[in-house]
Amino acid sequence: MSKSTALDIVALDADDTLWENEHFFRLTEKDFQSLLADHADPDHLAERLIEIERRNLRLYGFGIKGFTLSMIETAIEITNGEVSGKTIAELVEIGRTLMQHPIHLVAGARETVETLATDYSLMLITKGDLFDQERKIAQSGLADLFDRIEIVGDKTPEAYQRVFETAGVAPDRVLMAGNSVKSDVLPVLDIGGWGVFVPHPLTWAFEHAEEPAQHVRFRRVGALTDLPELVAGL
Amino acid sequence: MSKSTALDIVALDADDTLWENEHFFRLTEKDFQSLLADHADPDHLAERLIEIERRNLRLYGFGIKGFTLSMIETAIEITNGEVSGKTIAELVEIGRTLMQHPIHLVAGARETVETLATDYSLMLITKGDLFDQERKIAQSGLADLFDRIEIVGDKTPEAYQRVFETAGVAPDRVLMAGNSVKSDVLPVLDIGGWGVFVPHPLTWAFEHAEEPAQHVRFRRVGALTDLPELVAGL
Repeated sequence: MSKSTALDIVALDADDTLWENEHFFRLTEKDFQSLLADHADPDHLAERLIEIERRNLRLYGFGIKGFTLSMIETAIEITNGEVSGKTIAELVEIGRTLMQHPIHLVAGARETVETLATDYSLMLITKGDLFDQERKIAQSGLADLFDRIEIVGDKTPEAYQRVFETAGVAPDRVLMAGNSVKSDVLPVLDIGGWGVFVPHPLTWAFEHAEEPAQHVRFRRVGALTDLPELVAGL
Repeated sequence: MSKSTALDIVALDADDTLWENEHFFRLTEKDFQSLLADHADPDHLAERLIEIERRNLRLYGFGIKGFTLSMIETAIEITNGEVSGKTIAELVEIGRTLMQHPIHLVAGARETVETLATDYSLMLITKGDLFDQERKIAQSGLADLFDRIEIVGDKTPEAYQRVFETAGVAPDRVLMAGNSVKSDVLPVLDIGGWGVFVPHPLTWAFEHAEEPAQHVRFRRVGALTDLPELVAGL
């Protein structure tokens, strides 16, 4: 494939772009619902949990430790404080299990990253618990293919601006690809970069946003493996 | 003051070097001990908590969310699971309060950083919850004085190596100063940099380590405000 003359850096999201993540959160939510089945039905629990997660986001940020604290808080609220210490212990435990889930790369992730790495400087940009993201990056076996790895608190336009500045690259020479229109695409378009939506069948409720279909620097691929061809054609 | 010809970058730790941190953890521990006073005496609680924190470090890393989860786990263990949901709710709450504690700069911190910034490229290197550290950095009002801010999962020699590499500086042209011999001094000496110990009356039990008094690139200052003079003399 020929190298695009429009780009210097290709940046990729990690969770649910390179490896599965939401899948493991969903399994944990099922466990959470089973543990509290005597107190509320699954749908109501799911709804309360997401409300509490949303409320806590400003304080906890993204990641499994905050999610575990939100599960505990939901259990307390839903039972009016009557939840037992043993049930809380099990919630702590399912949080710990989530923190140790194995890394399952998305189909073709390694090949795609290897292909891109032959022509571009690659950057991994992810958000959430620093400690947990570092573990996943190490276990993915992909770290060496990236020139830069940036873990940010939240994927705002300002955060991307800072990352690109540190890398010494103009935003219009960067393409960012990921499964969240809200976090991976819109903020990058906003500061003048390219944004590519790589849909994943499971995407967290918070990450939903409308595709900016008319935007001149927006693209969408059917799968991650289509990315090298799209990039080469820009 | 004259500029040292030995150094390009001065790097500083944040928690308990530039601003108070351990002080707020100690207040929270007191609240924790009061909440569980019916179940165990304060010393025993403190001991169990630190054991559980140590055990969890590998999984949670550093930071308040992990600390809150460790308090919850300690409460469950110490009561054999009999702790009430209401007490757990209070533990979650004191964790949240800790996350919102105000920033109290160490005496002379701003002036010291301003003085150093006139002669050196400054770097802030801290560890812990990304989200929480970002909040504290923003609220400190010192962010603009630093050329680079790096939040790392743990302060290992490898982490420093990576940070210095990214900054394009040789380790022997960097001086790192902080209140933890273990985290701020030893790993930097280890990779060939300068390490300055800035003692703080409160330092977390995990951070204790012997001062490498004989090391040629080790220094110790009485207070942060002595740092510019020490640096200029190198």
